[in-house]
Amino acid sequence: MRILTIAKEIQQQILEEKKNGKSIGYVPTMGFLHEGHASLLKKARKENDIVVLTIFVNPLQFGPNEDFDSYPRDIEHDEKVAQSALIDYLFYPSIEEMYPDEVSVKVTVQHRTDVLCGRKRPGHFDGVATVLTKFFNIINPDKVYFGMKDAQQVAVVDGLITDFNFDIEIMPVETVREEDGLAKSSRNVYLLEEERACAHELYKGLNLAREAALHGEDNPEKLVSLISNHIMNYTNGKIDYIEVYSYPELKPLEKVSGNVIIALAVQFTTARLIDNVTFLVHNDTN
Amino acid sequence: MRILTIAKEIQQQILEEKKNGKSIGYVPTMGFLHEGHASLLKKARKENDIVVLTIFVNPLQFGPNEDFDSYPRDIEHDEKVAQSALIDYLFYPSIEEMYPDEVSVKVTVQHRTDVLCGRKRPGHFDGVATVLTKFFNIINPDKVYFGMKDAQQVAVVDGLITDFNFDIEIMPVETVREEDGLAKSSRNVYLLEEERACAHELYKGLNLAREAALHGEDNPEKLVSLISNHIMNYTNGKIDYIEVYSYPELKPLEKVSGNVIIALAVQFTTARLIDNVTFLVHNDTN
Repeated sequence: MRILTIAKEIQQQILEEKKNGKSIGYVPTMGFLHEGHASLLKKARKENDIVVLTIFVNPLQFGPNEDFDSYPRDIEHDEKVAQSALIDYLFYPSIEEMYPDEVSVKVTVQHRTDVLCGRKRPGHFDGVATVLTKFFNIINPDKVYFGMKDAQQVAVVDGLITDFNFDIEIMPVETVREEDGLAKSSRNVYLLEEERACAHELYKGLNLAREAALHGEDNPEKLVSLISNHIMNYTNGKIDYIEVYSYPELKPLEKVSGNVIIALAVQFTTARLIDNVTFLVHNDTN
Repeated sequence: MRILTIAKEIQQQILEEKKNGKSIGYVPTMGFLHEGHASLLKKARKENDIVVLTIFVNPLQFGPNEDFDSYPRDIEHDEKVAQSALIDYLFYPSIEEMYPDEVSVKVTVQHRTDVLCGRKRPGHFDGVATVLTKFFNIINPDKVYFGMKDAQQVAVVDGLITDFNFDIEIMPVETVREEDGLAKSSRNVYLLEEERACAHELYKGLNLAREAALHGEDNPEKLVSLISNHIMNYTNGKIDYIEVYSYPELKPLEKVSGNVIIALAVQFTTARLIDNVTFLVHNDTN
């Protein structure tokens, strides 16, 4: 594994790899790697000649009241994870390397942002899209890997790649789950014991709604009620949102059909959990 | 010369050329090619294995009151110019090919826009930077050619390439001039006979200021007066602006030093002419 910190250097290195016919798989992260990231690295390792991991806590995607300074960092741990995932290049630039001067251009995301978690984080996805535009140009990957846990991010990146004509294939990777179905998250440790015991009911609720939709329930509001009733019956969590959209466009649906996402956020005493399911409803079953 | 209209097709073609070790020179235009474009194509032809020309009248860079519909188009003439310039690929996409859906991401330019001609065209350079981001990803050039006639555009693209880490070298090409020094422009035909006879005084004024700066005059206001006096004495044009900035940052200068641009716009009866000079003032001569 080579660790590089200078954009021009890794750009030239990867250009050489590509000249030699190697395919490039890319996993962008903010570090503090957990099992979710490991599953992305594993998939990338399987599907590409060369795997590149970037670790960069991007100040541009944090709001003024968000936790940029206190965002957890542990590069030594991350290097070990990267090593054992057998990646080829770790790119770990400083803020000065990524933003040497005041930024003269920015990507602004016009759609897919004002829903789900994005609604409360204005500008967040502009920061994500801007830094990814930079990384895509530096790394020049054939495939880029994102976890479906943050489905809205996948949707925004899908738009970025399509609309800016990046020659990159986006590879959404399924959410890694505990045995009972709870989506893995570094925040799960903040759940109280009785909360942890019922937290898998979020995913169960999502699945109840998916089953209903696949069996012909095409009213989005009914799907939302189904989930909210389930969550209120089986957990003490406070529902932040439960929303149904087309995927990846994230547009409201009058009738549930085509590619669909149902996503939710639930606040427990200290931990706020998110989860989602995406699935295809064939129009002819409606 | 191959003429292509589908982004994915030319993207794959050029990828093949690059795999074969060919260098790619790129000239982006809105068509209606004149001698200025021809000089870009000539330079690109000299310096690259493969030359790509794009012709696309980009609706995104026209303001609501600007002349998108009446912007001149003549693809037959353009194809002849391209043929005789011995280019390899002409990419001539439709609007639907470039913007198939509503645009979900846009580039916004934060600096270098609110001066010179950009001041009166809010959003213009956002449109330029957005379409160039797309073309850069489609064409993947090693070098891209722009005329210094539109020095502000060169400055904005320079920022775009640097800040988004495009692996592209920007090649500014000197303004093509008539024998008397008047910058060539399709608008020159709108000059009245007596206006054409004195229009070269714009460039002469710019050169007087450049000479003064190179001989130690470091007060930007004095350089501006020198030019405005010259233009008022020798032409009947109405000065729109004469401005002095650092180049390519386009920041105001208290003292003229380093890389400098002096640019002007002058309104004649029907034609509005622009011109500029860029030059380096060594700090130690001040």
